[in-house]
Amino acid sequence: MNFLSDTTAPVHPDILAALGAVNDGYAPSYGADWVAERVKARLADIFETDLEVVLTVSGTASNALALSALCPSDAMVLCHDEAHIQRDERGAPEFFTRGAKLLPLKGDHACISESSLREVLAEWPSDFVHTTPPAVLSLSQLNESGVAYSLRQIRILIDLARAGGLRVHMDGARFTNALVALDCTPADMTWKSGVDILCLGATKNGALAAEAVILFPEAHDRFPVLQAHQKRAGHMLPKMRFTAAQIDAWLSHELWLNLARQANTAARWLSDGLSALEGIALVHPTHGNEVFVQMKPEMRQALKAAGAQFYDWPDGSARFVASWNTRAEDVEDVLNAARKG
Amino acid sequence: MNFLSDTTAPVHPDILAALGAVNDGYAPSYGADWVAERVKARLADIFETDLEVVLTVSGTASNALALSALCPSDAMVLCHDEAHIQRDERGAPEFFTRGAKLLPLKGDHACISESSLREVLAEWPSDFVHTTPPAVLSLSQLNESGVAYSLRQIRILIDLARAGGLRVHMDGARFTNALVALDCTPADMTWKSGVDILCLGATKNGALAAEAVILFPEAHDRFPVLQAHQKRAGHMLPKMRFTAAQIDAWLSHELWLNLARQANTAARWLSDGLSALEGIALVHPTHGNEVFVQMKPEMRQALKAAGAQFYDWPDGSARFVASWNTRAEDVEDVLNAARKG
Amino acid sequence: MNFLSDTTAPVHPDILAALGAVNDGYAPSYGADWVAERVKARLADIFETDLEVVLTVSGTASNALALSALCPSDAMVLCHDEAHIQRDERGAPEFFTRGAKLLPLKGDHACISESSLREVLAEWPSDFVHTTPPAVLSLSQLNESGVAYSLRQIRILIDLARAGGLRVHMDGARFTNALVALDCTPADMTWKSGVDILCLGATKNGALAAEAVILFPEAHDRFPVLQAHQKRAGHMLPKMRFTAAQIDAWLSHELWLNLARQANTAARWLSDGLSALEGIALVHPTHGNEVFVQMKPEMRQALKAAGAQFYDWPDGSARFVASWNTRAEDVEDVLNAARKG
Amino acid sequence: MNFLSDTTAPVHPDILAALGAVNDGYAPSYGADWVAERVKARLADIFETDLEVVLTVSGTASNALALSALCPSDAMVLCHDEAHIQRDERGAPEFFTRGAKLLPLKGDHACISESSLREVLAEWPSDFVHTTPPAVLSLSQLNESGVAYSLRQIRILIDLARAGGLRVHMDGARFTNALVALDCTPADMTWKSGVDILCLGATKNGALAAEAVILFPEAHDRFPVLQAHQKRAGHMLPKMRFTAAQIDAWLSHELWLNLARQANTAARWLSDGLSALEGIALVHPTHGNEVFVQMKPEMRQALKAAGAQFYDWPDGSARFVASWNTRAEDVEDVLNAARKG
Repeated sequence: MNFLSDTTAPVHPDILAALGAVNDGYAPSYGADWVAERVKARLADIFETDLEVVLTVSGTASNALALSALCPSDAMVLCHDEAHIQRDERGAPEFFTRGAKLLPLKGDHACISESSLREVLAEWPSDFVHTTPPAVLSLSQLNESGVAYSLRQIRILIDLARAGGLRVHMDGARFTNALVALDCTPADMTWKSGVDILCLGATKNGALAAEAVILFPEAHDRFPVLQAHQKRAGHMLPKMRFTAAQIDAWLSHELWLNLARQANTAARWLSDGLSALEGIALVHPTHGNEVFVQMKPEMRQALKAAGAQFYDWPDGSARFVASWNTRAEDVEDVLNAARKG
Repeated sequence: MNFLSDTTAPVHPDILAALGAVNDGYAPSYGADWVAERVKARLADIFETDLEVVLTVSGTASNALALSALCPSDAMVLCHDEAHIQRDERGAPEFFTRGAKLLPLKGDHACISESSLREVLAEWPSDFVHTTPPAVLSLSQLNESGVAYSLRQIRILIDLARAGGLRVHMDGARFTNALVALDCTPADMTWKSGVDILCLGATKNGALAAEAVILFPEAHDRFPVLQAHQKRAGHMLPKMRFTAAQIDAWLSHELWLNLARQANTAARWLSDGLSALEGIALVHPTHGNEVFVQMKPEMRQALKAAGAQFYDWPDGSARFVASWNTRAEDVEDVLNAARKG
Repeated sequence: MNFLSDTTAPVHPDILAALGAVNDGYAPSYGADWVAERVKARLADIFETDLEVVLTVSGTASNALALSALCPSDAMVLCHDEAHIQRDERGAPEFFTRGAKLLPLKGDHACISESSLREVLAEWPSDFVHTTPPAVLSLSQLNESGVAYSLRQIRILIDLARAGGLRVHMDGARFTNALVALDCTPADMTWKSGVDILCLGATKNGALAAEAVILFPEAHDRFPVLQAHQKRAGHMLPKMRFTAAQIDAWLSHELWLNLARQANTAARWLSDGLSALEGIALVHPTHGNEVFVQMKPEMRQALKAAGAQFYDWPDGSARFVASWNTRAEDVEDVLNAARKG
Repeated sequence: MNFLSDTTAPVHPDILAALGAVNDGYAPSYGADWVAERVKARLADIFETDLEVVLTVSGTASNALALSALCPSDAMVLCHDEAHIQRDERGAPEFFTRGAKLLPLKGDHACISESSLREVLAEWPSDFVHTTPPAVLSLSQLNESGVAYSLRQIRILIDLARAGGLRVHMDGARFTNALVALDCTPADMTWKSGVDILCLGATKNGALAAEAVILFPEAHDRFPVLQAHQKRAGHMLPKMRFTAAQIDAWLSHELWLNLARQANTAARWLSDGLSALEGIALVHPTHGNEVFVQMKPEMRQALKAAGAQFYDWPDGSARFVASWNTRAEDVEDVLNAARKG
């Protein structure tokens, strides 16, 4: 009954096997290998466009590298007040950008509201030497409340941002969970909606340590800077073929989509089951693989006593995260414990 | 005949197998797992002292994190002019320290000379507000010329540095190759000689992507800063157990020592064989797994034509790096091609 | 009728004369002169405590230097959402701290509310490696709405902050205007209430370019860092005696207090006069030398047509700033124009 | 007999008077005043080209701002090993560039040698992701040994640099002393020779605290960045008219040239007088207002006993700096004391 986080889950066997499959003999270092080439081709195919890509080993690294490629050090990133880049990365974006400002916006369920974005763009000019200018809008898909922005919401926010001269970053640590939830194409959810850079996370969805920072065509000018920062930040791995191999296996045979569907389905069962109980209320809609509930203290105690592991969210709710590895009986065990609570 | 670098070599099967062995079920994220505990205990045992340790995925990350924990942003790191941190890390130390200065020292065979260190310590005061004060001495063991400092050299330099109030970093990307070359204890080569922080590299010696930043007792005060920087730099991996598992396997059954011995032996054969030929001269003594030679252009051509891969070093010499995976016949093939050259 | 800002005002003649008075022959450079000594003694006398002081030429420099001495680069400064350090310094605090985060708090009239501070301290832990820890509370006295915190408010906020382990910075660009408004002692408004570092501004109150960063006893440990940053940021002036001479004259014969009283009095007349008119409403209480009003568009037009200069504040109000140089007839002219508007 | 530094000298009366002359009433803040406009026009006239200019209060600020406008944070500045930016600014260039590297070059009399520059450009590639690329060549005119590069030397070095894609910074803290020494035009010594940015110092040559960072046409693209950094670094002064007034007076009636000639002449007398004595040897040629001599310990003692103030240079020599204020009798007193020594 481990629902602490999808980062506590094991690696999918196919991905582990892929490491062995590329361990044959010598390979060029630092990402110049054939596996990386194959990954790039796969991604171009999936996203239906030409793209540049840099691989990393953590979501924090991906986000911070991407932001450092888009945001000058004396400019500003707009993000939700609860965004991972604002709350959970120990200031990695500020570090990688060498001093950019993050401005926290408001909105329900961790979605930036249109009005909050409008207000900030009006208040913070882009061309006044005394003021830090907004340079980047950052959206998280899924966001910190486990919610997926609809395509319509994404486009409204991005249109506003681009009208103000901003570029757009998408934190896709749980991109695939959002993708299968919205049932749209990867292209629709990204560059066709105006996203410049996507941080596509595989680690939370079955990989060992693999993330892809993808630059869509309008951001190709930032590729040399991104690569230089990758090296400078110690994220250009000597034996990069093993990072690439993870992404390669993950994208093969729709594994990435299937693993996300499994996790989302488990979360859906859990969400439906819990919200049917008295004394439990969903705090946010369950779009992906995360369930946030408020529950009576007795029930919380009962669950913990029964061995259920979940995260005590700062707002007092309980967060359950399903992973690719969550089994039906894990969900059932939680629900049974809750029913007794 | 791939002698380009030990980073092009594959992963040792025992280390790859260790990944699978820890892939059973859930584990705490971000380094709070039992494998990391085991690694720490092993290292304490091997180094015969209490220590703190942080794991990373690249030597550049290790060095830069270690330096950022020792060197204030307005101070200075003393290193050899040819050091990896000065030449080959795209300014990672400057980035992680947020603006510290690296001062290049001189000395033959990439060893900092005592006189060069004395001169710099005399010229750069530690307490003058206008001048960047020296704060850290950085030694590479093996260094960029493949040379191991003797224990005596290490102690002379460190004594000078510590007398000037500096702390000491050791870049041990090829630490094990130096260790088996000197045939001393890990403790002797590090904290017993005054080293504060060691970057112990496993990636070049059989691992996939695993390095350990080790703080010896006198540097334990820097541990919280090191951990915060690790997170802030995107190097605190969600599924850290797989990094720990590599180091764990590498340290087991003396694998680390055996792999280094294999590489050193192959380099010794190559060095002996090449230097016996006319038209070839060793540029530096062969202490570890690297061989630097000057050779006639015809011989260089002949080798390349025969398929030998080596690195054209900036000074005009050729660098051959043996790895744990180098076979006797690889060495023989190079020597045969050279004999014909 | 220039009420744009107290930075547009001329220099008081006594302060200008002081420059000539110290221009006799040679003096040690970089602040080691006798005038600086005299300033330090005067400040110690006025603030009734031992203190360390660094002089600068701008309020932005003072604030950013002070914050860089208090806040680690991976930590956080809490300030009001409208604070000068957040809105009007082009990210100088982020630059000088090399990447610290500023977290904007809420509260009416640009005063941080107790509840907002409590909430942030509860939400942002000080010892969790993934989260940027709060390290500094920054208060502006006068604040961006021209309002002076009462001593009671200051103490409530600082007590909360110190209980959470934070240190305290006061942006005193208009410190003297607040001081004469509250009619308390400089000691009461600062270190006796828990302030660690005060940025005491003279430029807006009659000087040419002179500010003092004052470290009270509990922050004396930060003095070497502050001095090093001052040099490193290009703010350690070669001929510092001329900066010191300004502060020296400004503190003599109660000039600083008298100039602030003049400005406050003019602002009071203007505030009383304007708020007595129909169609005009004060937006914030007038504590010091700044008056914020909402007025009918016609009145705004009439004032501008009559030659009144004021600042169009982002929230739609008009800001009038009185300076030491504002004359009674300037105020009368504005009021007459407004009456006709 | 104060020859410690030209920074210990007083302000020229005409420059002090200019402060009073612009103190009449209100003026726009932050450099938008008419005095700044006049300075820009004067400089364009003197340098015979269109230019952009930013004013600062210290040479360290000027150099660091200029370098931050030219050098990306992951790139490198080439300068002489003894350059002020390398030795005497507490790492201000590293701070303002947020982590660029300074690479020290060699050459006699603090002049970068052609061979040293060639070697570095060959060794440090501009397009290799692992290596910090050279981006800026920095020349000091006068340099740290008081020597002026000839126009021919300047052009050889700059041609090499520009062929390698570098941009060029000139540290002109004592630019005027070099200018009158070479007897060429300001244009010849700067943009006509390929200089992109000049830091023109007035403080050491009679001003209070005034320096101009001048962007020649090929560097105009960097002006917005330079202005933003100026603000961000706390160097955009509220009452900038008083900085501009200093430069304005300094450039009027050839004051800047006359003051430099006075200082150079005094240094020439001193240099000629000292070098004629037994037991004293010039260490560097005397081109401007600085004299470096080696002398017997007894003579050094005698001079100090007689009240002569000079700087004990790190290499064991004595540095005498003449200023605009140095009188013939000051020089005579030193010579007389030396003759007795």
